[in-house]
Amino acid sequence: MRRIYMDYAAGMPVDPRVFDAMRPHFLESFGNPSSPHTMGLEARTADDEARRRVAQLIGAERNEEIIFTSGATEGNNMALKGVANINRSKGNHIITTTIEHMSVINTCKHLTKSGFNVNYLPVDKYGLIDVDALSKAITDKTILISVAYANSEIGTVQPIREIGATARERGAYFHVDGTAAVGKIPIDVRKENIDLLTISSNDMYGPKGVGALYIRDHVRIEPIIHGGGQERGLRSGTENTPGIVGMGKAAEIAKQEMEWEGKRLTPIRDKLISNVLDRIPYSYLNGHPVKRLPNNANMRFSFIEGESLILSLDMIGVSASTGSACTSKTLEPSHVLTGIGLAHEEAHGSLLFTLGRSNTAEDVDYVVEELPGIVKRLRAMSPLTPKEVL
Amino acid sequence: MRRIYMDYAAGMPVDPRVFDAMRPHFLESFGNPSSPHTMGLEARTADDEARRRVAQLIGAERNEEIIFTSGATEGNNMALKGVANINRSKGNHIITTTIEHMSVINTCKHLTKSGFNVNYLPVDKYGLIDVDALSKAITDKTILISVAYANSEIGTVQPIREIGATARERGAYFHVDGTAAVGKIPIDVRKENIDLLTISSNDMYGPKGVGALYIRDHVRIEPIIHGGGQERGLRSGTENTPGIVGMGKAAEIAKQEMEWEGKRLTPIRDKLISNVLDRIPYSYLNGHPVKRLPNNANMRFSFIEGESLILSLDMIGVSASTGSACTSKTLEPSHVLTGIGLAHEEAHGSLLFTLGRSNTAEDVDYVVEELPGIVKRLRAMSPLTPKEVL
Repeated sequence: MRRIYMDYAAGMPVDPRVFDAMRPHFLESFGNPSSPHTMGLEARTADDEARRRVAQLIGAERNEEIIFTSGATEGNNMALKGVANINRSKGNHIITTTIEHMSVINTCKHLTKSGFNVNYLPVDKYGLIDVDALSKAITDKTILISVAYANSEIGTVQPIREIGATARERGAYFHVDGTAAVGKIPIDVRKENIDLLTISSNDMYGPKGVGALYIRDHVRIEPIIHGGGQERGLRSGTENTPGIVGMGKAAEIAKQEMEWEGKRLTPIRDKLISNVLDRIPYSYLNGHPVKRLPNNANMRFSFIEGESLILSLDMIGVSASTGSACTSKTLEPSHVLTGIGLAHEEAHGSLLFTLGRSNTAEDVDYVVEELPGIVKRLRAMSPLTPKEVL
Repeated sequence: MRRIYMDYAAGMPVDPRVFDAMRPHFLESFGNPSSPHTMGLEARTADDEARRRVAQLIGAERNEEIIFTSGATEGNNMALKGVANINRSKGNHIITTTIEHMSVINTCKHLTKSGFNVNYLPVDKYGLIDVDALSKAITDKTILISVAYANSEIGTVQPIREIGATARERGAYFHVDGTAAVGKIPIDVRKENIDLLTISSNDMYGPKGVGALYIRDHVRIEPIIHGGGQERGLRSGTENTPGIVGMGKAAEIAKQEMEWEGKRLTPIRDKLISNVLDRIPYSYLNGHPVKRLPNNANMRFSFIEGESLILSLDMIGVSASTGSACTSKTLEPSHVLTGIGLAHEEAHGSLLFTLGRSNTAEDVDYVVEELPGIVKRLRAMSPLTPKEVL
């Protein structure tokens, strides 16, 4: 069976060029960058080059502003806890939104236990934040604002530059979870007034188990992992040089190719959305029609469950998702979908396609061909479907 | 130039069989184990098999007692902070030793800031802990005892089973940093009464950026990284399946081959130690002569600096170390060496060889041949060398 993977937000292959860049660091050049001998120097040089490539991708002023982590979840934890704990004397108020990733939401909940107050700002029906409302929510106790650049489930891209300007003006640090956006759309941390940016490696065809946190020069954080003082004392632990090199290569490739790849994917993605919505009654787009990631198509279908859609698609070789893989184990509907105002039963009928390198217009044709029949069958079996719809 | 790597404690290559096991998870089977479709199931199955292999290596009762981490430093942080923070109401006293890895020492220092009291027990001149002294140090506030199975710098192996029995008897949790020991010498968490065991992947020819924490069934910890609830809610973040699979394969290979490899390395290591000590005057062994890791040879040479020795050895193609790569950036002498009672100038003259798969008797012959001349030259240049020694 032909397999069509349309769940790139859940996991990506590494680019073959990334794999080739990593290989020698697994097998031959495996020194510790802290070692003073030749093998150590090789690793240090490789780490530094990767750091430069990641810095370049996001327009960082200095390579040292990039701190390598074990991934986006750690990056979000490190940014939020790190800024909160070191600025405790300045204030205890944090602003975020209701549709952030669980690594932001649950870290905020954890901080609440130690005396922080967190505002979860609502978003509109497209998932967009209201910058005026944000501005009004800022108090003299506000130390940190955390908003994802783009939402990984519904693909909505936030007005980051405006939020950044507001945060800067009002003296709050601005953390951006860039997991879904970095490497897909251009980001410039300086122009956008971003103080901290979480970067995922796997979300741009780099290896899993590695990520980075951009920390602007003047921003101080308290580390969450203590030890040998690696990464300027901010993230201890032996450097994962193969992973770091892979992430650096992925960043370099993304910088060169993301614009082209975005232009290739957008019409395919639009074709998928418009054809599905045209052919299937009672189907709707989740997220913003235009301000969205080029690879994201999140739609909902009344009367049925996304879970059944995924399993039916899997049987014909198509991998898709209901939302974040991180929260797929719970029976609760996605907090992102309820956050944009969907009722539980609407949220449950959602289906997320995230496209990537392997996907072509033919893949979309196949899904557009097969999906109406699947939805029809599932609706026929569903007790929720009104008779007149069948 | 022939290159002889004798710094395996600082970094290891991955075993080629490990690399082969990882490869498909980078390139083809790259699903997210939380995804309900076929690609997700493949990843979940691979993670579970790796978990089983790690559990088997250390004699864990259940596979679920293995939680994957980003490495040993995170594992040590998670164990210490995790147990301390959840047991705060039961007591605030922690016992460890003066010669632990910086990821234990600095985590303890961090815990001190939030109200915990830490006893750093002294060790004898070989680096051995006194179990009677440990027993006397336990109070009714003692919630946790943390001791490394073997010291990564001086190689000394602790009487873990006795410490474990004491901890169990006195009602304190027992955490063991197994970084230097797991995969090199047999460990049985049940027989040795270990409640938490930190495991490093790269220290047994697995990939960097991954590790595991064994957490015995009844032991509860508070997570240090919050998010999507992966790893039974104890370590959030998308699973690093290629890394996890690599670690699992490394654990399987270690279980099969470590006894044989230990028997191969011990005589080579002993030959290195005895020949160097024989041929070079004013040279001494650091650590215990018998209770030591099979691959560890740590020696010191009066009147000169380990740093110069390393650079001289590097010039003839030999990679060695002064101690932990994690602390090589500071000018302070190793706390492990001062912890076994060495004066600063003695500690500074230390040289650490950690042997591994690539090393043969011929490598040792080469070092034994070259080192006396190097030491002699450096001593001739050193103002500390007494005239009669030259």
